[in-house]
Amino acid sequence: MKARVERLRGELEDLGASTFLVAEPVNVRYLTGFASSNAAVLIGSDQVTLVTDGRYIESARSLDGTEAVQADRDLASWLGERLGELAEPPVAFEANRLTYAGYDALTSSGLELRPAKGVVEEIRSVKDKAELDAIRRSARVNDAAYERLAEEKFVGRTEVEVAWAMEQALHDAGAEGLAFPVIVASGPNAARPHHYPGVRKIGSGETVIVDAGAVVDGYSSDCTRTFATGSLPDDLQAAYDACRRVQATALEEVRARADARQIDANVRTALETAGYEVMHGLGHGVGLEVHELPVLRPTATGSLVAGNVVTVEPGVYLAGRGGVRIEDLVIVTNDAPEILSPFTKEVVTVA
Amino acid sequence: MKARVERLRGELEDLGASTFLVAEPVNVRYLTGFASSNAAVLIGSDQVTLVTDGRYIESARSLDGTEAVQADRDLASWLGERLGELAEPPVAFEANRLTYAGYDALTSSGLELRPAKGVVEEIRSVKDKAELDAIRRSARVNDAAYERLAEEKFVGRTEVEVAWAMEQALHDAGAEGLAFPVIVASGPNAARPHHYPGVRKIGSGETVIVDAGAVVDGYSSDCTRTFATGSLPDDLQAAYDACRRVQATALEEVRARADARQIDANVRTALETAGYEVMHGLGHGVGLEVHELPVLRPTATGSLVAGNVVTVEPGVYLAGRGGVRIEDLVIVTNDAPEILSPFTKEVVTVA
Repeated sequence: MKARVERLRGELEDLGASTFLVAEPVNVRYLTGFASSNAAVLIGSDQVTLVTDGRYIESARSLDGTEAVQADRDLASWLGERLGELAEPPVAFEANRLTYAGYDALTSSGLELRPAKGVVEEIRSVKDKAELDAIRRSARVNDAAYERLAEEKFVGRTEVEVAWAMEQALHDAGAEGLAFPVIVASGPNAARPHHYPGVRKIGSGETVIVDAGAVVDGYSSDCTRTFATGSLPDDLQAAYDACRRVQATALEEVRARADARQIDANVRTALETAGYEVMHGLGHGVGLEVHELPVLRPTATGSLVAGNVVTVEPGVYLAGRGGVRIEDLVIVTNDAPEILSPFTKEVVTVA
Repeated sequence: MKARVERLRGELEDLGASTFLVAEPVNVRYLTGFASSNAAVLIGSDQVTLVTDGRYIESARSLDGTEAVQADRDLASWLGERLGELAEPPVAFEANRLTYAGYDALTSSGLELRPAKGVVEEIRSVKDKAELDAIRRSARVNDAAYERLAEEKFVGRTEVEVAWAMEQALHDAGAEGLAFPVIVASGPNAARPHHYPGVRKIGSGETVIVDAGAVVDGYSSDCTRTFATGSLPDDLQAAYDACRRVQATALEEVRARADARQIDANVRTALETAGYEVMHGLGHGVGLEVHELPVLRPTATGSLVAGNVVTVEPGVYLAGRGGVRIEDLVIVTNDAPEILSPFTKEVVTVA
């Protein structure tokens, strides 16, 4: 945690701030190890002050290296009254997380405030060793669940039934929770990238996209595989082959110093050249949240660095017919990425 | 939906606004029936304009009574550029939901903006018939899960194992999801109202608090029962009796025109008189979110009205020993509340 706090301290000067007020729970957890639904941390050049309400104060006091202060449940209003005693101004705050009402409450302090956007999120995009280990564990759990899912019956069951089978498999493999609700999209539904599982009965000779992730020790994983319920019609088989090919090519490009937008653009070009419409970006960061920095899509800026953890998930969608998505979770290194999704990318035919 | 939009229109004048910009997804869903993770709705005196990104625009266009407009994924920035064409100023916005960065983006429009806090949430606190029916269905599912849980073995299993049994029971009873992660707190852990299930093995002669809720058709339910693993020591049995007694008394007070803060205060007085420390408020509203208005706690303001849906959940906690919480979900009426948690409040002894 100390190194994480130091990285944030290193940003203070550029922000023109003496103190950074972090009030987004997931960012507080990242910086202090303290998990709760309602806490803030004030970080100054030699200050780490954790502010939380009565429900959590006992656990907060047991943390090393931080001073714990009890506040009201409405942290922003409480801080609006007390910030002057607790923080040296100017105070940077998380403009992309704090509500306008929270900001307005802070202004009561009379202190100079500096909106800062995505600073902790940017730091979080490069994982340390403990985080990488947690993500590897989470991915292993996810992988074990896919192995079990492949033994399940698909044909004749509904999407929600298969989603529940996957949820049970994730639990039994050791997930403490789901990174997001399991997606199962079959037949024509598989042509819609944002489909939620429904009561459609899965038929034969279809593709079934299963997109799922575990949470282990707070860290998410994320993997997609596309199953076949029997032999596929030519157009879907061709879509599968195209998706698999561009996914493999993209993986070769994912490494430190690669331009994030360019990797996405290359996949786009390859799929469009093959005659397919591209319906979403190539990938996103994964960590304490399942969608975080860096992103691989047209709005991405900058280059990948070693320690980023990203998904690589091209999709090919044929309206009314079906779809294919293949997603690996990978750790970016100076070389070939470390792939955390060992489950086969060959077509797996399920019963 | 029309009546809901009318209720919001009725607030415009008091807010000094011509248009209300609602961008919190759960509030958008409430007003339009449109469920997504990224949408805003502009409501003017004769305008309902739904703004969403490319992922959702097709479904948005299929809605009746609203105009659908496609925006970029960063809705606030997109609206900052287009709000002048889409909305008549002044424009009220959800100050307790929109981030500071979102607000800042809206100011690019040059339009006069009016921060408004909790307006849709206040409207949502009084449920209409369709909502009450959904909450009743959700509560029935929750109740069926408690009936099944009571048949489970507790002693010798861990809290997380019992929580998973409850999650499975909720699924099998028809829940589309959990209102919140199932809480199972046993033995000394039951003395901590905000305990999360852990690997502690449940022993004999303890109390086990189980707090769980289903989601059905988007609506949450919420119920807590305290089980006994064998005959309880006198202090825990007395705690159970006290909790049950004050819960029953509080239920009699929950009706239209009752002062929300007073009901909480009465429970507080009764428990303190009996020698117990009160560790949390008496209850909260439940609907599209599992914590919403109205609240029954010391910071509550105003009176209950028919159509509120609230929990009534006093707790008695004995540090190091155990705890008891009994929670019903009820619909407020002009008379006795409609109780949606039929599962027995007698001590249920489990194996």
